[in-house]
Amino acid sequence: MVITELNSTECKALLTSTRMGRLGCSKDGQPYIVPIQFVLDGIYLYSFSLQGQKVEWMRANPLVCVQVDEFGEQREWQSVIVNGRYEELPDRIGWKRQRDHAWSLLSKHANWWEPGGMKPITEGGASHLFYRIVIEQMTGRRARTVP
Amino acid sequence: MVITELNSTECKALLTSTRMGRLGCSKDGQPYIVPIQFVLDGIYLYSFSLQGQKVEWMRANPLVCVQVDEFGEQREWQSVIVNGRYEELPDRIGWKRQRDHAWSLLSKHANWWEPGGMKPITEGGASHLFYRIVIEQMTGRRARTVP
Repeated sequence: MVITELNSTECKALLTSTRMGRLGCSKDGQPYIVPIQFVLDGIYLYSFSLQGQKVEWMRANPLVCVQVDEFGEQREWQSVIVNGRYEELPDRIGWKRQRDHAWSLLSKHANWWEPGGMKPITEGGASHLFYRIVIEQMTGRRARTVP
Repeated sequence: MVITELNSTECKALLTSTRMGRLGCSKDGQPYIVPIQFVLDGIYLYSFSLQGQKVEWMRANPLVCVQVDEFGEQREWQSVIVNGRYEELPDRIGWKRQRDHAWSLLSKHANWWEPGGMKPITEGGASHLFYRIVIEQMTGRRARTVP
């Protein structure tokens, strides 16, 4: 296997083709990971969630990361890590345009509301919120079999 | 879809059947995620890595998490998150037994050395290290279609 770095275009290609990733946030030095669905648009990853631990943590500390990978045949793989900043798109005056944009991007894809948007039935009653990750740094690697 | 919590036995079952997960660590409030291969044994997740960012970060802050998921047919999924503590198994007197045990567990599985153990070729020369995550908390969820 030969491992090489991905350039910015290759990182974006993986973020576009793989709309499922893992979001990392942290609180008091304890990291937390959840699977999310997202859509890349410019310098943003758009997503949404129910209220819960990850939203509380990201409000308290907006430094987050999103990791995406893809495993191919013959043990080939690609992985991208995005460092970014959490930005909530609140349901308030002044945010309608950004929220509508997020909705328009996310609603194009089937299953976009899972699993980040679903909670155990016992918790019920929470409302969804839209957010985006401002991409600040993006790196990736690829492993390919040597011919 | 109905979302339910997994009990401890169900969490362990997923950690046993899915030896590929995402490790989260953090430094100064910035989380970081990398895919890893691991083997569950008792209260430990055994794994190994080349030297690099995640090892440096985990040495500085041993609070880590490991997230594992599995996606089935008809949008069904399971996801487990482990909170734990990084413990290095150094190549020194007093650690041989634990290192041999880690090796014996990990070497049973094909591909266990990827991708956590491989780096871009330009970096070369780094040596592998064994480590384990002491599981301190483990929770999980499952989504199933309603019959």
